[in-house]
Amino acid sequence: MNSWYVNGEAVEHLAVDDRGLQYGDGLFETIAIRNGEARLWSKHMERLNKGCELLGIVMPTESDLHAGVMQAVTASGVLPAYAVTKIILTAGTSLRGYGRQRDQLPFVLFGAFAATPPPAVSYQNGIEVALCETRLASNSAFAGIKTLNRLEQVLARSEIMATDAYEGLTMDADDNIICGTMSNVFFVQNKTISTAPVDRSGVSGVMRRHAIDVLRKQELDTRLQYTDLPSLGDVEEVFLSNSQFGVMPVNRCGERTWSVGPVTRKVMSLLAEAGIDECRL
Amino acid sequence: MNSWYVNGEAVEHLAVDDRGLQYGDGLFETIAIRNGEARLWSKHMERLNKGCELLGIVMPTESDLHAGVMQAVTASGVLPAYAVTKIILTAGTSLRGYGRQRDQLPFVLFGAFAATPPPAVSYQNGIEVALCETRLASNSAFAGIKTLNRLEQVLARSEIMATDAYEGLTMDADDNIICGTMSNVFFVQNKTISTAPVDRSGVSGVMRRHAIDVLRKQELDTRLQYTDLPSLGDVEEVFLSNSQFGVMPVNRCGERTWSVGPVTRKVMSLLAEAGIDECRL
Repeated sequence: MNSWYVNGEAVEHLAVDDRGLQYGDGLFETIAIRNGEARLWSKHMERLNKGCELLGIVMPTESDLHAGVMQAVTASGVLPAYAVTKIILTAGTSLRGYGRQRDQLPFVLFGAFAATPPPAVSYQNGIEVALCETRLASNSAFAGIKTLNRLEQVLARSEIMATDAYEGLTMDADDNIICGTMSNVFFVQNKTISTAPVDRSGVSGVMRRHAIDVLRKQELDTRLQYTDLPSLGDVEEVFLSNSQFGVMPVNRCGERTWSVGPVTRKVMSLLAEAGIDECRL
Repeated sequence: MNSWYVNGEAVEHLAVDDRGLQYGDGLFETIAIRNGEARLWSKHMERLNKGCELLGIVMPTESDLHAGVMQAVTASGVLPAYAVTKIILTAGTSLRGYGRQRDQLPFVLFGAFAATPPPAVSYQNGIEVALCETRLASNSAFAGIKTLNRLEQVLARSEIMATDAYEGLTMDADDNIICGTMSNVFFVQNKTISTAPVDRSGVSGVMRRHAIDVLRKQELDTRLQYTDLPSLGDVEEVFLSNSQFGVMPVNRCGERTWSVGPVTRKVMSLLAEAGIDECRL
């Protein structure tokens, strides 16, 4: 079963001089397919478009991208009820050298993969996270967007593979907890929900954005503010967000433990109502 | 003429699921071939080895890498008297997901390309540089090494393509001038030579390292210290270093101009004696 497609054709290779390989010059989106539909599509497109503007890559039309995703799902034979797709958009090939024109036409790859939902017990009882030693650089020109420069996540994620943790949390040099290796993290304290700003490092996750929108619409106090490592002990509840699993409670980080609290339950219930079925307890 | 080789075979493609493409999970070295030899080979190997240790990739033997480079030069038909080679070392293919084992076997690509030396007038009169708007992130886990995550350089270099400048200088968020997009930068002030530390951002260039070694051996005061933008006006001489062109004087940056001063001439003369022929005036 081939998982990657270009222009509707199955592919296994790409050009060695593609700038995606040579420099990580490109972007990607990992999108949940649920009940035959690309979930949170417009939020994925919003972020991809922002990335294209920053990198100077011509954004394909949304309808072409949507068709490419659906074509990959169909051709790969994955279950359209529950699968994951990935769009990779590189700056194409060019002569040797970092520099290129700003209106670069992209090379676009579509991947489709089978997936299984996390066990219900993870949503009910929460999961364990670990603190990663790998730190995120600060003041990144690419904060918020999802480029192909992902070495920080590779190292951070690799750290926790040998542990019992489901996810690793990454900090910047000032001990601010920015996000997970493949998720965003929210903290609850004094009835206030917060998650780190992602304008200096980290990724603006689509589920993070969706959760913030849903919570603010319900007039729940939801702030963009840093929680640093010393403050972690004061936090009452912790949960993660990710485009694939929705929102998941955290019950442990090292010595610190939390129960699945009322605010997290409320957030999950609101998200379940807002189309994120995994969050239905 | 094919420019890329794997195990001595010409290649034009690599696997779509290579981690080099998916995450920029890999390293590279761009090495000058001069008179049939790989110049500053041991310094390139030292940096590559450091990168492999940090990324958890098994370093190939130096003799295998050397054979691969020379094979690429011969097979590509470039002039062994003056050419440029590139070694790309990715973390290979793996299942989807950031995490991987630390003892990953690499996929190794060798490229060979024709090159022409910069004109003599550039060495005699100096070249113009421009300040890039793209800033380097601080406290990068990958400072100093040459990973495939090169988007900062792509954006910075693309900025100056439409200008008269030969190179762009990049700063961190604190206005410290760290390096060029494809070079390191040295400043001369009060008989002291300095270049920025590269332990928080920037690349530890092999020609930078070679120049520091040569200058210190001659007991020339050569320091690792930041020069910030406001201090640029006080600087007496400026020069760049790069593995391909050696050392090149800078005569202009925006409104500021410099002549090719005695310290830069001395540095070039010392480097010419230390095997960097381009620097012979």
